[in-house]
Amino acid sequence: MFFHVKELQYHAKPDRPDPVYAKKLQEVLGGQFGEITVMMQYLFQGWNCRGNQKYRDMLLDIGTEEIAHVEMLATMIAQLLDNAPVEDQEEAAKDPVVGAVMGGMNPQHSIVSGLGATPTDSAGYPFNSRYTVASGNLLADFRANLNAESQGRLQVVRLYEMTDDRGVRDMLSWLIARDTMHQNQWMAAIEELEQNEKPIVPSTFNQQYEKQEVSHSFMNYSFGDESSEGRWAKGKSMDGDGEFEYIRDPKAFGQIPVLKPAPGYIHGTPNNNENP
Amino acid sequence: MFFHVKELQYHAKPDRPDPVYAKKLQEVLGGQFGEITVMMQYLFQGWNCRGNQKYRDMLLDIGTEEIAHVEMLATMIAQLLDNAPVEDQEEAAKDPVVGAVMGGMNPQHSIVSGLGATPTDSAGYPFNSRYTVASGNLLADFRANLNAESQGRLQVVRLYEMTDDRGVRDMLSWLIARDTMHQNQWMAAIEELEQNEKPIVPSTFNQQYEKQEVSHSFMNYSFGDESSEGRWAKGKSMDGDGEFEYIRDPKAFGQIPVLKPAPGYIHGTPNNNENP
Amino acid sequence: MFFHVKELQYHAKPDRPDPVYAKKLQEVLGGQFGEITVMMQYLFQGWNCRGNQKYRDMLLDIGTEEIAHVEMLATMIAQLLDNAPVEDQEEAAKDPVVGAVMGGMNPQHSIVSGLGATPTDSAGYPFNSRYTVASGNLLADFRANLNAESQGRLQVVRLYEMTDDRGVRDMLSWLIARDTMHQNQWMAAIEELEQNEKPIVPSTFNQQYEKQEVSHSFMNYSFGDESSEGRWAKGKSMDGDGEFEYIRDPKAFGQIPVLKPAPGYIHGTPNNNENP
Amino acid sequence: MFFHVKELQYHAKPDRPDPVYAKKLQEVLGGQFGEITVMMQYLFQGWNCRGNQKYRDMLLDIGTEEIAHVEMLATMIAQLLDNAPVEDQEEAAKDPVVGAVMGGMNPQHSIVSGLGATPTDSAGYPFNSRYTVASGNLLADFRANLNAESQGRLQVVRLYEMTDDRGVRDMLSWLIARDTMHQNQWMAAIEELEQNEKPIVPSTFNQQYEKQEVSHSFMNYSFGDESSEGRWAKGKSMDGDGEFEYIRDPKAFGQIPVLKPAPGYIHGTPNNNENP
Amino acid sequence: MFFHVKELQYHAKPDRPDPVYAKKLQEVLGGQFGEITVMMQYLFQGWNCRGNQKYRDMLLDIGTEEIAHVEMLATMIAQLLDNAPVEDQEEAAKDPVVGAVMGGMNPQHSIVSGLGATPTDSAGYPFNSRYTVASGNLLADFRANLNAESQGRLQVVRLYEMTDDRGVRDMLSWLIARDTMHQNQWMAAIEELEQNEKPIVPSTFNQQYEKQEVSHSFMNYSFGDESSEGRWAKGKSMDGDGEFEYIRDPKAFGQIPVLKPAPGYIHGTPNNNENP
Amino acid sequence: MFFHVKELQYHAKPDRPDPVYAKKLQEVLGGQFGEITVMMQYLFQGWNCRGNQKYRDMLLDIGTEEIAHVEMLATMIAQLLDNAPVEDQEEAAKDPVVGAVMGGMNPQHSIVSGLGATPTDSAGYPFNSRYTVASGNLLADFRANLNAESQGRLQVVRLYEMTDDRGVRDMLSWLIARDTMHQNQWMAAIEELEQNEKPIVPSTFNQQYEKQEVSHSFMNYSFGDESSEGRWAKGKSMDGDGEFEYIRDPKAFGQIPVLKPAPGYIHGTPNNNENP
Repeated sequence: MFFHVKELQYHAKPDRPDPVYAKKLQEVLGGQFGEITVMMQYLFQGWNCRGNQKYRDMLLDIGTEEIAHVEMLATMIAQLLDNAPVEDQEEAAKDPVVGAVMGGMNPQHSIVSGLGATPTDSAGYPFNSRYTVASGNLLADFRANLNAESQGRLQVVRLYEMTDDRGVRDMLSWLIARDTMHQNQWMAAIEELEQNEKPIVPSTFNQQYEKQEVSHSFMNYSFGDESSEGRWAKGKSMDGDGEFEYIRDPKAFGQIPVLKPAPGYIHGTPNNNENP
Repeated sequence: MFFHVKELQYHAKPDRPDPVYAKKLQEVLGGQFGEITVMMQYLFQGWNCRGNQKYRDMLLDIGTEEIAHVEMLATMIAQLLDNAPVEDQEEAAKDPVVGAVMGGMNPQHSIVSGLGATPTDSAGYPFNSRYTVASGNLLADFRANLNAESQGRLQVVRLYEMTDDRGVRDMLSWLIARDTMHQNQWMAAIEELEQNEKPIVPSTFNQQYEKQEVSHSFMNYSFGDESSEGRWAKGKSMDGDGEFEYIRDPKAFGQIPVLKPAPGYIHGTPNNNENP
Repeated sequence: MFFHVKELQYHAKPDRPDPVYAKKLQEVLGGQFGEITVMMQYLFQGWNCRGNQKYRDMLLDIGTEEIAHVEMLATMIAQLLDNAPVEDQEEAAKDPVVGAVMGGMNPQHSIVSGLGATPTDSAGYPFNSRYTVASGNLLADFRANLNAESQGRLQVVRLYEMTDDRGVRDMLSWLIARDTMHQNQWMAAIEELEQNEKPIVPSTFNQQYEKQEVSHSFMNYSFGDESSEGRWAKGKSMDGDGEFEYIRDPKAFGQIPVLKPAPGYIHGTPNNNENP
Repeated sequence: MFFHVKELQYHAKPDRPDPVYAKKLQEVLGGQFGEITVMMQYLFQGWNCRGNQKYRDMLLDIGTEEIAHVEMLATMIAQLLDNAPVEDQEEAAKDPVVGAVMGGMNPQHSIVSGLGATPTDSAGYPFNSRYTVASGNLLADFRANLNAESQGRLQVVRLYEMTDDRGVRDMLSWLIARDTMHQNQWMAAIEELEQNEKPIVPSTFNQQYEKQEVSHSFMNYSFGDESSEGRWAKGKSMDGDGEFEYIRDPKAFGQIPVLKPAPGYIHGTPNNNENP
Repeated sequence: MFFHVKELQYHAKPDRPDPVYAKKLQEVLGGQFGEITVMMQYLFQGWNCRGNQKYRDMLLDIGTEEIAHVEMLATMIAQLLDNAPVEDQEEAAKDPVVGAVMGGMNPQHSIVSGLGATPTDSAGYPFNSRYTVASGNLLADFRANLNAESQGRLQVVRLYEMTDDRGVRDMLSWLIARDTMHQNQWMAAIEELEQNEKPIVPSTFNQQYEKQEVSHSFMNYSFGDESSEGRWAKGKSMDGDGEFEYIRDPKAFGQIPVLKPAPGYIHGTPNNNENP
Repeated sequence: MFFHVKELQYHAKPDRPDPVYAKKLQEVLGGQFGEITVMMQYLFQGWNCRGNQKYRDMLLDIGTEEIAHVEMLATMIAQLLDNAPVEDQEEAAKDPVVGAVMGGMNPQHSIVSGLGATPTDSAGYPFNSRYTVASGNLLADFRANLNAESQGRLQVVRLYEMTDDRGVRDMLSWLIARDTMHQNQWMAAIEELEQNEKPIVPSTFNQQYEKQEVSHSFMNYSFGDESSEGRWAKGKSMDGDGEFEYIRDPKAFGQIPVLKPAPGYIHGTPNNNENP
């Protein structure tokens, strides 16, 4: 169960409206790695967490924090849209600044949401839950989380570069710092789990049943071998189970596939047509 | 530019048809973390790679391998669908085995693709490119890749548990081994990059501009503090820049938001309606 | 079965082309509450209507009218796109007006549809049928319809404010009037149904089986109680079955969830990892 | 900002696992009118609410309650999935009960989420934010909310009919009661707003600019006139501005559209091809 | 403008309910090549048709017919769902026939639509307008239409094979015949256009500006040359402009791409990291 | 299995960056008929091809070529984005050229992909696999392919008109020529198949079971009969089986549908409410 506190986690107040920037800022609200994604991802990981109360609690803590980030961004975007113009655009274009503002806005910010934030990204594409990850395996999911915070911080930093508004930058400086913490947090949680299980997810599968001959082989599927110079091509493997191997010229091990004709009730290509 | 070799990378031949399993196997072909996703993800990361030829080559090597995995899975699924029944289902249900087969199939495997694999997941939902990640920052993206291979191997292992077919298990044992390698590979590449830059993505943002007071603080947003027991709540932070701090009772720093009424041309809620 | 009449239901002729406005106008053609949505919604409600010929006929009447509205908007948009420019945009930008036109267009209007309307919204997102509602319960669905006409009229009115073109405004004045009628119509139909059943949908569920202690309680899940001042917090409930109650400080009634560990074949987080 | 309480708002504990029912119950978690939809809808309406603190507070109260409903449903679904079988399905089919369980499950519940709830509907289709509504006009949005609670209660009631599990029914009896309250709540809020503005949304548009001749006319677009018998076809209009009128045989008012040929750079159909 | 006739274009009455078949039949209602797709496709092609009244009229004729096909399928599906069971499924499974019926239904047919047809396909995926084509070039679009009718008839024929219900088969025999006509119709329309323009779409592009050296060359991108045996590899090209050529061993003509490093404000991979 | 060659199939190098054009060019990379679509479509048709090795080989040849086209377009787009500006947009707008560039870009090109190509279309909408076709019937699918190449070439030609950049035009001239070949190729393959089977897909359905009375009838569903002048309305039908017939005034053959009331457990509209 949840409770709401009226104050925002941190200030979210721009110096002045900027509807074009509002459109861009939507990316980190409703985009693939926006705050809605991590909110849903952490909450579902927490709710689905089986038998690990420490991790469940931690996941619900951070998931609850992310709702507050969604709130801050929605609030900021609404203010960036204050009094956004809706005049005739060709007329507006005579003043280049007004014209640029109108051309750069997301029209749904006036037509659909009435100057409010929307749960969409900077291209106007809606958030969908296939962005989120909750697999029931915490090591796998913490890697998803570290990725999400890495992509997220990268996007916020890029947005920081795109504005001079001190109010916006102030809020972003908070989100960037929290993303620093959250990257740290997932690295710490990953380290903790890896001390108790092997780093290959899932660690509980009996590796005798995998084709171990190719479990540490880098296969060079292009002409040229710059890829042989990386850490992945030589030396001890990261799981400690073998040595990396570089296969310069990989061979095919499988058959040439020949599929049976489809039965008549499928009405595929008639077989007497072959090789006419 | 690419060339095709007729032989498969590895055998893909089931002992017998099994259209219900065909539906399930679609998950690792066209699902969120299926082979189409990693194929597209690695190829786009490679094509977009700016000024790092070693990584570009490596990305295109593995991306090209993944096309071969898509091919193996598509071939396997088509064979699992050989002669799949399409009879009247109520009639079929009188034989429980036939009934279960028909009830468990994806009907599009007969109606739409004519006993062929489809680029969709096990719920019949189509692959879409928002599953993929290519941010222009390799450390961020290699974390996405490590996650993708972790989720992917987890799903393949689960599918391995769901069948007794030796042909299917043989092919899956190959894919599992390659996922072992690929997790190793991304861990190695991440380690290599982290030796040259700080582990917080992006490493090039001047951290003076972030709100550093909260860059290492875990905030406990739930009543109860099991989350204080984790590695993320105490000790040296993973980036080496500070100490983790546990904030048992986080405070709000921001304002209570009060938005301005919308201008008349938006036709929002009339303001005289407030507090009637 | 349907017949087509070549004349439009009402005039749809702009004074002059305006490809930027064409992009915006797409919202009420192919958006969440555009004419395609209501066309599909009313037709499916009519076709699925069980045993109520008066309502079925009315639904198919209005659904058929909405096809005509789709036609008017598509026709208008095609004309707004007449001779839309496709020149090199940087060159065009030297003339601010041309530049604004090109920057504000949906590029698919020239590349994909060849100056034709598309079944998408103002962000270029395609119509999809999850926008529509047909539940088999007419009181529920008429509320969906009243909402759709309210959102729809609001959007058309906003679009009216965004143009000075008299031809466009003339057509919109027709659509606005029809939306006035359609809001009236659904209010009338709702009133008629509510005279015969209770206003809580569905009215046929035996309310003894619901947890009636909380059927009329407003729960205050935020700190602060401005919400206590509304009609929903005191007085007779709207269904006539009780009194509204304001619960200032709602309590949790449920358990702290503790989920069982997953079985081994799921390969979740190894349980010995807990509390390491 | 938000806080989490570990106890659930109400009990969510099934008598026994039932993975087939878990699939169905997903509808009211992640479907078009599921709890995720109303959670997002109310929170965004609250965050975007301009200048009406009473309504803002109320919206955030109910939005916060809905997060708790998402939590209850996710928790219930995870338990319904406890130890769900993943054996070979053809084998399983020999026991009709096991066979039916396996055939009726969503395979993603084992392959993807590892026996956890997913933010998708009962067909496995992901939640997306185009399901939500926040227009900036509260009367319009409260109608959307009344609809959402009507559709939602209808779906929960249908799910109640589909199970005998007393634990599940107990939880559903809570959700049904809350939906009773929430329908009451939106009816009350609508009544309150309608006392201050006219019932046609938006009430602030000058109706002189709409084509008032057709603002109260029902148009009969089908052969046959059962639709003339409804409240919408005669008597005072609901907005009090006129009389309903029934147009038995509506006429077209518009032109036959004739579009100009496309300019050459569009490469449409060559015009000399017409009437060959 | 449109009018509705209450009678269906053809009979749509099953001998008996069959909710499992109802799920399958959805494919040709709301699937990629279902009746909703062709309805929308032909109507939009007609409404966007520039300056060719004969084709416009023909397109609107067939588009209007397709609305009637949508109506027939929706009506049939609703009847196939008559009295569909919603009991506890595990209980039902004790009777294998009832169990199979419940396991094979789309649960949304009872939970969401209340035994009504839905605008979705047989996997429950919603219709979306990216299925449709209207390019402004009629020759291109008539090829899209010929494809749609080919895929559509193929799917209906497969569905015909999946049932013994005489009422269903009677309706399908009508749809199959109409698809026969519609394939004929688009072949005829294509022939007519091709008599007036060249068969390569668009015919109005000056072919001097294309790289004509490769306008008739088949390139063999796989090892092995079975593909050399087709009509496409030798003889006069279909456009009459050249001879087909078979390039057994195609060469690359382009550069090895080397992209510039990203500017600092993008925060890509630090360049000093290259070749560490 | 596949191999990668580092050189591009053809040059892909613009004269100068142009981020606005980069956005537009995305259409033929990740749009409905972009190169990703045809790549996936041909590969899946090849992998699913049953018993026709000549066609399988041909399909995999062209599918493999299309991967190279995806590569060329991705490479071109990345270069068009070189050093794309991310400054404050209102400031930028003071220089109309810079303002137009920034207003016309896809913001995801800087925020999300860091100046890289994305697998999306020119509206920013992601590629999804419902764009692709692989039905198991080659004649049907080759018609899909001919359509895809027709739509594709049309879009590339339009993009050619939208730029003066000689490097871009050089690359497009290659793609246009290949599309010329590919239209030729599919016409040749269709001709070859039609020589062995009848042109109506599928050719293996016994036409006695279709309602042959209407297999060659054009039905005029609009008032006015311009559509009677086409080839489809008179003369020998294209399948050689009959004469086209023009039905000026088509009649309804079906019943007026009357659906049964829903059973109580569906909680539809209460039946005593009918005709109140």
